[in-house]
Amino acid sequence: MEHRLRAAALVAALLTAASGSAQEFEGERLLSPGGDIEVSVAARGGRLGYAVHYRGEEVIRPSQLGLLFQSRHGFNDGMVLLGEAQRRSADTTWEQPWGENRYVRDHYNELLLTARHEVSGAVLHIRLRAFDDGIGFRYEMPEQPGIERLNIVRELTQFAVPTEAAAWWIPADRTNRYELLYWQTGLEEIERVHTPVTFRLPSGTHLSIHEAALVDYSGMTLMQEYTGGFRAALRPWSDGVLVKTAVPFVSPWRTIQIAPDAVGLVNSNLILNLNEPNKLGDVSWVKPGKYVGIWWAMHINERTWGRDGVHGATTEETMRYMDFAAENGFVGVLVEGWNVGWDGDWQAAGDLFSFTESYPDFDIEAVTRYGHERGVELIGHHETSGNITNYEQQMGAAFDLYEELGVTRVKTGYVAGTSWLKWVDENGVAHYEYHDGQLAVRHHLKVIEEAAKRGISVNPHEPVKDTGLRRTYPNWVTREGARGQEYNAWGQPPNPPEHTTILPFTRMLSGPMDFTPGTFDLMPNERPPVREDMPRGSPESRVETTLAKQLALFVIIHSPLQMASDLPENYAARPDAFKFIRDVPADWGETVALAGEVGDFVVIARRERGSEDWYVGAITDEQPRQIDLDLSFLDEDGGYDVEIYVDGADADWESNPYSLAIEERPVTASDRLALHLAPGGGAAVRLARAAD
Amino acid sequence: MEHRLRAAALVAALLTAASGSAQEFEGERLLSPGGDIEVSVAARGGRLGYAVHYRGEEVIRPSQLGLLFQSRHGFNDGMVLLGEAQRRSADTTWEQPWGENRYVRDHYNELLLTARHEVSGAVLHIRLRAFDDGIGFRYEMPEQPGIERLNIVRELTQFAVPTEAAAWWIPADRTNRYELLYWQTGLEEIERVHTPVTFRLPSGTHLSIHEAALVDYSGMTLMQEYTGGFRAALRPWSDGVLVKTAVPFVSPWRTIQIAPDAVGLVNSNLILNLNEPNKLGDVSWVKPGKYVGIWWAMHINERTWGRDGVHGATTEETMRYMDFAAENGFVGVLVEGWNVGWDGDWQAAGDLFSFTESYPDFDIEAVTRYGHERGVELIGHHETSGNITNYEQQMGAAFDLYEELGVTRVKTGYVAGTSWLKWVDENGVAHYEYHDGQLAVRHHLKVIEEAAKRGISVNPHEPVKDTGLRRTYPNWVTREGARGQEYNAWGQPPNPPEHTTILPFTRMLSGPMDFTPGTFDLMPNERPPVREDMPRGSPESRVETTLAKQLALFVIIHSPLQMASDLPENYAARPDAFKFIRDVPADWGETVALAGEVGDFVVIARRERGSEDWYVGAITDEQPRQIDLDLSFLDEDGGYDVEIYVDGADADWESNPYSLAIEERPVTASDRLALHLAPGGGAAVRLARAAD
Repeated sequence: MEHRLRAAALVAALLTAASGSAQEFEGERLLSPGGDIEVSVAARGGRLGYAVHYRGEEVIRPSQLGLLFQSRHGFNDGMVLLGEAQRRSADTTWEQPWGENRYVRDHYNELLLTARHEVSGAVLHIRLRAFDDGIGFRYEMPEQPGIERLNIVRELTQFAVPTEAAAWWIPADRTNRYELLYWQTGLEEIERVHTPVTFRLPSGTHLSIHEAALVDYSGMTLMQEYTGGFRAALRPWSDGVLVKTAVPFVSPWRTIQIAPDAVGLVNSNLILNLNEPNKLGDVSWVKPGKYVGIWWAMHINERTWGRDGVHGATTEETMRYMDFAAENGFVGVLVEGWNVGWDGDWQAAGDLFSFTESYPDFDIEAVTRYGHERGVELIGHHETSGNITNYEQQMGAAFDLYEELGVTRVKTGYVAGTSWLKWVDENGVAHYEYHDGQLAVRHHLKVIEEAAKRGISVNPHEPVKDTGLRRTYPNWVTREGARGQEYNAWGQPPNPPEHTTILPFTRMLSGPMDFTPGTFDLMPNERPPVREDMPRGSPESRVETTLAKQLALFVIIHSPLQMASDLPENYAARPDAFKFIRDVPADWGETVALAGEVGDFVVIARRERGSEDWYVGAITDEQPRQIDLDLSFLDEDGGYDVEIYVDGADADWESNPYSLAIEERPVTASDRLALHLAPGGGAAVRLARAAD
Repeated sequence: MEHRLRAAALVAALLTAASGSAQEFEGERLLSPGGDIEVSVAARGGRLGYAVHYRGEEVIRPSQLGLLFQSRHGFNDGMVLLGEAQRRSADTTWEQPWGENRYVRDHYNELLLTARHEVSGAVLHIRLRAFDDGIGFRYEMPEQPGIERLNIVRELTQFAVPTEAAAWWIPADRTNRYELLYWQTGLEEIERVHTPVTFRLPSGTHLSIHEAALVDYSGMTLMQEYTGGFRAALRPWSDGVLVKTAVPFVSPWRTIQIAPDAVGLVNSNLILNLNEPNKLGDVSWVKPGKYVGIWWAMHINERTWGRDGVHGATTEETMRYMDFAAENGFVGVLVEGWNVGWDGDWQAAGDLFSFTESYPDFDIEAVTRYGHERGVELIGHHETSGNITNYEQQMGAAFDLYEELGVTRVKTGYVAGTSWLKWVDENGVAHYEYHDGQLAVRHHLKVIEEAAKRGISVNPHEPVKDTGLRRTYPNWVTREGARGQEYNAWGQPPNPPEHTTILPFTRMLSGPMDFTPGTFDLMPNERPPVREDMPRGSPESRVETTLAKQLALFVIIHSPLQMASDLPENYAARPDAFKFIRDVPADWGETVALAGEVGDFVVIARRERGSEDWYVGAITDEQPRQIDLDLSFLDEDGGYDVEIYVDGADADWESNPYSLAIEERPVTASDRLALHLAPGGGAAVRLARAAD
């Protein structure tokens, strides 16, 4: 039928109403402090919409705003903007207890609009903030007569990214987790994607769409519209409702980071700025640091989580790791498989785990005492197998136990054999929910709050995505939520060299990641099996990296709890390279992404928190690359002693991954370093302030 | 975290339970009558599952079965199979009132299993049928104490197609319609797809997954599982519930057509066989035939639907088309834009249409009378713009009007500016639903039933997909539901030559399509605009075909209401080619797909209903192709006069599309015809039984 006309659907209808061009999309305007970003908001033909320009370029074509509800008039059509828009500006600087930067400037202009549905009289506020690095907006439903609870059944928010953009994305429909390789495609190949999702326009402008402060709402994915562009597609509850909320409520911020180049996205603090300040008060008990763990041994099938193989979590083995940690400056030892429930099909069963009962060969009191005597903590572990009810019932006692034992960091896990988080209602009926639906959003925050009460920091795996809540809850120190190092141990396709050159411009824009870098034995599957019934994975599966790149990842991928993933014996075999891991911190005073292109390469410099020492990581994809590192980010006064860990001249991830050159010399801020990165390679640089 | 273990999710869990191979997936077995297809069904670890083999090859790996409900225990785990399975066989032949084949053999073995949830005691039947051309199964929830109404919130059905398959699919998430080009990819690129979806295994075995008898349920799409394979993803209501049903109920049949080659899928009648017999009784009033319409003129911007341009639907223009129809054997003239409501933004408004009030320049009584005097009917038209409430309120009166006027065929339309079907509840609250959700499923059947009461056949555009309900409701004669000819008129990318070589193996497996073939002016945008304010589309947009291929499509694409889409004057300009359109019928006694590969070429022979004359269509993609047409499908006794309309030797869709060779000669069943198809070309063959 008449689809040329039909192509005039939502977006186009807005366009038409606005006389065919976003430049002419007249409405309330909001400029960023520096003036580069301009947002227009209007009600046209009864529909709320917005458009965004950056330096005169249309980066979001006219796009709808609104919400629909289950049993009330929604904010789809018949909308009018009321009265005067409220305007406000702010320019403050706040301090992070830990993170990429100690001080963060929060500088924006704000517009608060009030819209009303003409028929129902219901009122909706839209709050927009324009920063120099992007925009955020959210829905605010104020208290109003006769509206107490609402079920949101559709969020109408559109993001009409120009059709000629390139995109880096992971699909949101294939799984309810995030552990996927990124695709780089044109928009036409996208169906439904997770956020953050990154776009590059032909002009070179880069965009990242995501959300900030995801609290008591469902996670947002983006679904392609028939007419191009995207719309918010929230994760439903198992009964299909998207969000169950009381009025008043505010939605998470919908964020669009905008930068003239790829590294501009990395240097943006917009997500953090749109989160509420620290609610926990004194968080000096949140202690960043590096850790090791009885973990990689399971991934390469030398140990097992349960006792149906060679149990890894024994008292003796833990003490061995603690000795190693103490000798090398690691703050903790993660021990997975310490508690009852790992035997048999723990993923499917879901309710076998005890979070307080150790296996008999793991003396939790002895190991924590042993660690404390050496300045090393046990890092706790709660694998829930996705059974939320089972975990929440035991959570209080479980954290109590850790508090008593002096365990201040806990890794949680949500591997679920059914792919779904399970909860059981008061009638005993089981329900299955998305890892990024409202249940998960509520649950994770509940864990964070319970842990905070006991001075415990949390590192969830298979988590909900990061939306910057670490600002508000600084004990939410890191998380997984992407395809990490572990995939390199398995028979599945390992991460290709470009994977880690995409992460900084996509997943990492949301926050820290427990990627677990630092694998030194790059072909673990070539080792002989430890037992006949514990075969290695395919020898074709390997870590597609050079040794130098593994070091560089400690700088590239920020995680306040940063794991060195390999076995102690593999580190002992390469003390030259291992020195960098010993030296590199996990917490930073200042960070600057210096250069990079999504999926090609990236160079990031970070200054150690409370120190004048800098660290630089540079990594490349499968292409060799010459990096001309300008050191002008250093303090101009005085010198530095540089230690460069770079691919050897003959290094190549595939044919010669262990070739590593280490150089030391004095440098100043006016020097440049020529770093030659091998295919799949990298460089790790330490710049220690020279003694006066 | 430990995802290698996690890769043991649902499917793998079933696999494990069944000792690692589907061959060893022991359970109840069901064989097809010829023994080529074997289905196994079992409860393993409390989960229901099935697997399918074809000639010893595993074509569906162990896959889960089950349903989850909003407020009751679902059939996920804790399931046991009860007592003896009931077995039954049938071998009948039934007659279609119209269609591809007059007689259809329905030959299957059936297995009826009863499963119970151990805790809740709820009972579920699973009925499976194995035919020689595939399988079907459905859920049947019998009457049982305490369960009256159910909201289905997840269907657990999986289809674990072997990962090495190639697939032809259209995405189900980009739009809630079906008007998209097909993708041919490996499974890894699939997120969520519409059915029917077609797979080819490395062995050459072809599969098509779809559903049959979609009644009062939501349409099924397939979503890729994290672990590979697909699961049923039903379209939710706007409140998120997938299906709202009373107990007892039966689900639609989930169908897997299986064939040793591509044409085997085309020759399958499985979808029809899994539908209920004709419920309408005498349907002699359902009259197939070819038609023309005041329609293409709007698509190429020579006329307009409303009166804001050059109104197409005038009394005079209709009479001109009726004269043309009468002269050339068309049974009807479609006139779009005849009724009040087309002016302005009719798509967005949605409630402006009257279905009984003509525009003043369209005298509906005069044109229907004029037509009847010449043996031509007006084909009615109801564009709803997706406003279900507005249409249902007027539908009775609208069909009454047509009945009074002797209009027996109505085209309906569901173009929706919002992309959603809109309905308004008793409180005046608007809700927006998918084109293939339960609302659409219910609505379309309501239209069919209301139309049937008045002896009217229906041809919906922007419809719900076909699931074979034409067997039960023979007045549901055809529909759109794919990317048709109209896309070739617009500035959007036109259909590439391969599109029509994919449709027979995908969309057409579900049933007839109103594709509207027969465009003779292949570059309509090169014509001068009729008015300054009605510009043509891009001259780059054209019909990517040869003239001969347009003729062949009348055989390839079955539609009992078959439109010749072009303007009368364009047919008058090519009487040589037009003769085939005049001759070719729209209803068939027998059909056989002779040869083809998905996306490359296809050759289909059809015998005219009630005649001994055969017609053959052969089309190719952008590649030229030599077809050696074996005529052994003809009756061996006696001869035929063949008329061959084939691409000229110098034809090429791009450079020389109008070159057409027409040959006539006598042939017999022992002859072969050498047909040379040009790039983007085709051949149309008429084989008229020679007089004795």
